[in-house]
Amino acid sequence: MISTSAVDSYVEKNSSRFVDDLMELCTFPSISNHGLDAVKPARDWVAGRLARFTDRVETMEAGGMPALYAEVPGAGKRKLLLYEHYDVQPVDPLDLWDSQPFEPVQKDGKLYARGVADDKADVMARIHALETLKSLGEIPVTLRFFVEGEEEIGSKSFDKIAHAHAGKLRADGCLWESGGFDSAGRPTMFFGARGLLYVQLRVRLLAFDQHSGFASLYPSAAAYLIAALASLRDEDMNIRIEGFYDDMVKATDADRRMLAKIDPEVEERRKLVGFEKLMRDPPPDRVIEQLLFTPTCNFAGVTTGYQGPGSKTVLPAEATAKLDFRLIPNQDPTDILAKLRRHLDLHGFDKVEIVSADGEKPARSDPESAIAKATIAGVKELHGEPVLWPFMHATGPMHPVVSDLGVPTVMPVGVGRPDNRIHAPNENIRVSDYLNTVRLMCRVWERFGAG
Amino acid sequence: MISTSAVDSYVEKNSSRFVDDLMELCTFPSISNHGLDAVKPARDWVAGRLARFTDRVETMEAGGMPALYAEVPGAGKRKLLLYEHYDVQPVDPLDLWDSQPFEPVQKDGKLYARGVADDKADVMARIHALETLKSLGEIPVTLRFFVEGEEEIGSKSFDKIAHAHAGKLRADGCLWESGGFDSAGRPTMFFGARGLLYVQLRVRLLAFDQHSGFASLYPSAAAYLIAALASLRDEDMNIRIEGFYDDMVKATDADRRMLAKIDPEVEERRKLVGFEKLMRDPPPDRVIEQLLFTPTCNFAGVTTGYQGPGSKTVLPAEATAKLDFRLIPNQDPTDILAKLRRHLDLHGFDKVEIVSADGEKPARSDPESAIAKATIAGVKELHGEPVLWPFMHATGPMHPVVSDLGVPTVMPVGVGRPDNRIHAPNENIRVSDYLNTVRLMCRVWERFGAG
Repeated sequence: MISTSAVDSYVEKNSSRFVDDLMELCTFPSISNHGLDAVKPARDWVAGRLARFTDRVETMEAGGMPALYAEVPGAGKRKLLLYEHYDVQPVDPLDLWDSQPFEPVQKDGKLYARGVADDKADVMARIHALETLKSLGEIPVTLRFFVEGEEEIGSKSFDKIAHAHAGKLRADGCLWESGGFDSAGRPTMFFGARGLLYVQLRVRLLAFDQHSGFASLYPSAAAYLIAALASLRDEDMNIRIEGFYDDMVKATDADRRMLAKIDPEVEERRKLVGFEKLMRDPPPDRVIEQLLFTPTCNFAGVTTGYQGPGSKTVLPAEATAKLDFRLIPNQDPTDILAKLRRHLDLHGFDKVEIVSADGEKPARSDPESAIAKATIAGVKELHGEPVLWPFMHATGPMHPVVSDLGVPTVMPVGVGRPDNRIHAPNENIRVSDYLNTVRLMCRVWERFGAG
Repeated sequence: MISTSAVDSYVEKNSSRFVDDLMELCTFPSISNHGLDAVKPARDWVAGRLARFTDRVETMEAGGMPALYAEVPGAGKRKLLLYEHYDVQPVDPLDLWDSQPFEPVQKDGKLYARGVADDKADVMARIHALETLKSLGEIPVTLRFFVEGEEEIGSKSFDKIAHAHAGKLRADGCLWESGGFDSAGRPTMFFGARGLLYVQLRVRLLAFDQHSGFASLYPSAAAYLIAALASLRDEDMNIRIEGFYDDMVKATDADRRMLAKIDPEVEERRKLVGFEKLMRDPPPDRVIEQLLFTPTCNFAGVTTGYQGPGSKTVLPAEATAKLDFRLIPNQDPTDILAKLRRHLDLHGFDKVEIVSADGEKPARSDPESAIAKATIAGVKELHGEPVLWPFMHATGPMHPVVSDLGVPTVMPVGVGRPDNRIHAPNENIRVSDYLNTVRLMCRVWERFGAG
């Protein structure tokens, strides 16, 4: 087993080259939203880097942006899946960037570039961890790199790829795309993600907008949609769709013990977010449970009629809404979509069209799995006691790995900070966080390989 | 009494000069929305034309765009108020005009210009009628021209002007801005207008938009506003604001006799407007009664959250709505506004702010008044039997004249046609309709003066 001091000194010695590598990866404008040609050069570059350590590099695709897969055989009997993505978000608004998004800049201990935090630091740190261990001795586990090319556009073919290549992706554990530190600087870890159903609704009752003097005679798409939306939930997020809560798990005692250790930071949130009181006004020790274990029906956007300044007296022909439902294990977006349709029909809202629907299943993994224990121990050594979350309040495409392939999965600590500005102008990371991510990977792999 | 044949031959002889005058008036870009400097040249030009017939021309103002007033003494004992407006709507979108909006064009029997239909044809036709009668003999009634300068921006100071100059504006009858012909070419007349309350609502519960993963914790402005809106009315326009219907008149038997003669044109409307069925699915003989006598709470605009294409998972910090209420005699917009506020507070929606409110009282006049009878007889002679509406489904600032000054008021037949495109690009009138408006005014004034 390679000593942590050997790892740390190798990382220290090679730190400026490591940073240069990451900056080189960040020069590729791999915006998946711009299509295949946009992502290919970054993918080829990453494939070349992986090929330095293994001849088992391939692309996997199922109609979307291809993913990269690379297997690096290790000494131990365990296999570890590593999930990252090489694609990035668009850069606009460009005028709010202080430097060019694909001309990485190092300044005051930070790196600035589109994708440097989300998720190229993970891609590169894991390759640098591989180099570090290989240079110092043996790779302790068989590593299975899976570097997705369309995470930022919804991982639409990940499900298909995971099923088609189950044999290659299956492993004894998975390190997901990393998280990082909370606003108080505490390292945080997650063992799952909430699911999502995103729907766009439309009601159209007239051929074109009418003078509102006719509102006493012609039906109102706006009133129809508003009544439909009001039938779905109340202001306390009690969702009235028949059967909505049927398959949902509740927090267990073990969950509650984990949740009790998470600081709800109510006053910090109040200061930042400006709410008068939290929804349902929970006692402080129930805030995080409510955040995670309350599935939502959120009105993300509603549009009808006149949108400009001042007044216009118009009876709108059409009304639209965008809704997102955050789902808890074991709710299924396909099932919730069917229940939404049934609810609308049942309550006389059959003229509400569901014009699009996209989903992601929720995923939960065992916080006491071997990969979980190895990661917690590694984080503890490097950063101190981590804050453990049963799952994220957000969503990620973990389900195929966690549930379909049955791989215990952990979101470890990476470069994440509240001021990373991911998806926004001036995306950045701390250089020290990057080097610590390399160190953490080496520690976790060694521990997991020894098991 | 001047014969109608003398009138018609004078109009015929002078028709091309009459049209030139109207076109000259239409060269002035008197957009009241652009302020005082924009409207002044048109006002001065009209004042000059009126000054050819009387030395009693003055401006009247109360903080907004000044109105023109001119009294022309007549032979009979009766006084007739003539309401028009010299201001016009803005012209955008300019690229949809086939000619310049303030460079009038005559083509295929039509005139094209901003304001030619609404309402410069009325302004000019009444001056031409005055010229016609004066040239042929005596003016039969004392004419009191009132030419407003801010009708297109809500007639905000008309109420004050009417009260300050009650002695000058009071008369035995009033000819309002003209209407015209329905889609079947039938002449139509109105004896009033519905009132209006326009309000803008806002709910703001957070400092800025949040990731929708927090929708289980932070309150939703969108859900709050939607619940508030849903509490105001149902899809059949049953309004649930406490006391909303208290002061409303119902259709009388006399109203119903008048309404029964109006063709509801259900199939024509269906073809044009594209509804599946009318709201409340009324029998054909109740369609027009429902149109006029159902006060409304219309959702003219609702906006919250993400408005772009595709999806965004956001918990909106703010939600806004624009509502217009069409009011029936004797509902009062000030009273309805107070009832709206009380309803919101009573039902737990105290965080809905009413950020602006504007109102216009409804107005009804007697359809058997002397000016009504004189106008009906004139229309009958020139165009055939008119369709009589107790009041318009739309709104106009008639209330100060009809109710406060007690002047019986009629909306006569003018250049109005369904294809006039008022407020829109390529606003136009038929030249023949213009000349008939001059003829009609002469006929009505003669009849009214003889009474």
